[in-house]
Amino acid sequence: MTATQAPILPLDGVTAISSNGENPLAGRTHAAAIDLGGTKILAAVFAPDGSIVSRAKKMTRAERGAEVVVDRMAEAVREAAAKAGVDVAELQAVGVGVPGPLDADTGVVFVAPNLGWRDFAVGPALAERLGRPVRLGNDVSVAVLAEHEAGAGRGTRHMVGIWPGTGVGGGIVVNGRLYGGVGDLAGEVGHMTILADGPKCGCGGRGHLEALCSRTAIVREIARRVKGGEKTRLSKITGKDVTQATSGDLAKAIAKGDKMVSEVIDRAGYYLALGIANLANVLNPELVVLGGGVVEALGESFVNGVAEQVRMQPLHAVTADLRIVASSLGDDAGITGAALLARRAVQAG
Amino acid sequence: MTATQAPILPLDGVTAISSNGENPLAGRTHAAAIDLGGTKILAAVFAPDGSIVSRAKKMTRAERGAEVVVDRMAEAVREAAAKAGVDVAELQAVGVGVPGPLDADTGVVFVAPNLGWRDFAVGPALAERLGRPVRLGNDVSVAVLAEHEAGAGRGTRHMVGIWPGTGVGGGIVVNGRLYGGVGDLAGEVGHMTILADGPKCGCGGRGHLEALCSRTAIVREIARRVKGGEKTRLSKITGKDVTQATSGDLAKAIAKGDKMVSEVIDRAGYYLALGIANLANVLNPELVVLGGGVVEALGESFVNGVAEQVRMQPLHAVTADLRIVASSLGDDAGITGAALLARRAVQAG
Repeated sequence: MTATQAPILPLDGVTAISSNGENPLAGRTHAAAIDLGGTKILAAVFAPDGSIVSRAKKMTRAERGAEVVVDRMAEAVREAAAKAGVDVAELQAVGVGVPGPLDADTGVVFVAPNLGWRDFAVGPALAERLGRPVRLGNDVSVAVLAEHEAGAGRGTRHMVGIWPGTGVGGGIVVNGRLYGGVGDLAGEVGHMTILADGPKCGCGGRGHLEALCSRTAIVREIARRVKGGEKTRLSKITGKDVTQATSGDLAKAIAKGDKMVSEVIDRAGYYLALGIANLANVLNPELVVLGGGVVEALGESFVNGVAEQVRMQPLHAVTADLRIVASSLGDDAGITGAALLARRAVQAG
Repeated sequence: MTATQAPILPLDGVTAISSNGENPLAGRTHAAAIDLGGTKILAAVFAPDGSIVSRAKKMTRAERGAEVVVDRMAEAVREAAAKAGVDVAELQAVGVGVPGPLDADTGVVFVAPNLGWRDFAVGPALAERLGRPVRLGNDVSVAVLAEHEAGAGRGTRHMVGIWPGTGVGGGIVVNGRLYGGVGDLAGEVGHMTILADGPKCGCGGRGHLEALCSRTAIVREIARRVKGGEKTRLSKITGKDVTQATSGDLAKAIAKGDKMVSEVIDRAGYYLALGIANLANVLNPELVVLGGGVVEALGESFVNGVAEQVRMQPLHAVTADLRIVASSLGDDAGITGAALLARRAVQAG
């Protein structure tokens, strides 16, 4: 099978509300899922009953080039399949969550800054190596899809997912389906302007939600305050350079009563609440699910604080009854969403 | 027929893309439409072929109480019907665009600040007076619906309408249908925060789009500058109190080369562009239609200026190809949307 003949497959209707109550992760055979990150490749094999039966983890090694990364992705799937006692040839399909915008039909990732990729046909390349159908999705979109179909949002018709981490990704569920808009680019909630002419965003804009409440924005503000002479325990936790702080480091600093870090996080949470209120006013969803690194690390108290701020925002008719919860799949949201892609992949032609 | 028995009717699926290319305003008999404003009641009768055959106009006289307003609405319909040579009893239904949130099923307007109404069952009251089915919709929602089905947005699947006037209303078309969300409250684009902690909005929030680019916000900023000693021709056009300026007055001042008014309008247009970019990033629509008093008065040059600013906003993948146009129905958008409601009203029970 050549790369161009590799089966890159259409989604068979990403219906979120299962009319028969079946486990959307179940299938006739096993399926594989990959969560492709800038530093790690996570793979898992899902059993016919929908449960995760094995996992494998590899460093991404993006600096060695795209083909090496694809080799490592294939190797991770083979390793997980071996652990599960499953022949790769028996896998229904392989779903992959990738960190960037893409064309799901051709399997081409347009741009993935964390991997240094531009217009790379990772789908066909992986399908060729494994001899199995491959289906790509944006990493945050599939995580939101997973929360909707198998997590905190199960059964909702109108839902928004917001994933603050290195950036701020998101996804919109409208009438029970993940919503793509005209170019499948909808859900870029991180690039809403919340503070016109505010801090610079990685995309070149200003005052975007991502520039106000991503981990990157949080540690930048902490670094600015440190430069201004303010003290933080974070300097001890991370060593000298506070901009290297992980979300876990931030959580540690707060747990130790670090006032400055708490203030910065509270401010980020306030902006996140304004962003949620924006989406509530535009979309009037029943549920907002918060996930991603920052939310995973800071936990329920952060989510509850944000929810409280949202309810103080007008219009009260749309914010008063809005449920705001943390992702229930946590770190498995990405891999679960990728498995959903694999389950929906339908052999073309 | 008592008020409680009055036929308040469900919409028969507000499908925006007519599969057979038929005129969505056409029907078996004539239909009536009302655009209910704080100062004026506009009524029109639509012929079976979908054209407007007659119009009537009355002052609202909200200060005389809700029942008087309903009397005047009924009178406006009777007058338009008489002009058209149509018996009121032959009208298919009466559609009404009202300035406030409402329950379409019961015909109750929850709150209409411009009318002083709160929880008023205007639908049943009007249906009782006319003996015809009445269907209510929010005035801006129906105007956006009209643009989508019979105006600038015809044939689009994913569209956003933004209506800057006294406030800033809006509507969202998703997959070819006007989108309501869980409580039919979606589309409140005027209450997106664009400038956190910015100027106060009528709703109590801060830095909302409505507080930055409505006519109210524009004249408030002009008044602030006048107080600060700046000069404007608007003082001559409106008399002393520039806060009484209409959108038409603003257009006149710009036409006369008033630099200060131009600056304020440019700034409002910039914020409107940020709001449009927000919606583009979240919803990735193919088209944005701008309508309402401010846009009608300022015309194409304003719309084109806003569109140019939007295209400079990230993410460029979503803003580059986004079409941004003025309402093609203009002042008739409201009455046309109300007529669509009448055409979709289906006799219940």
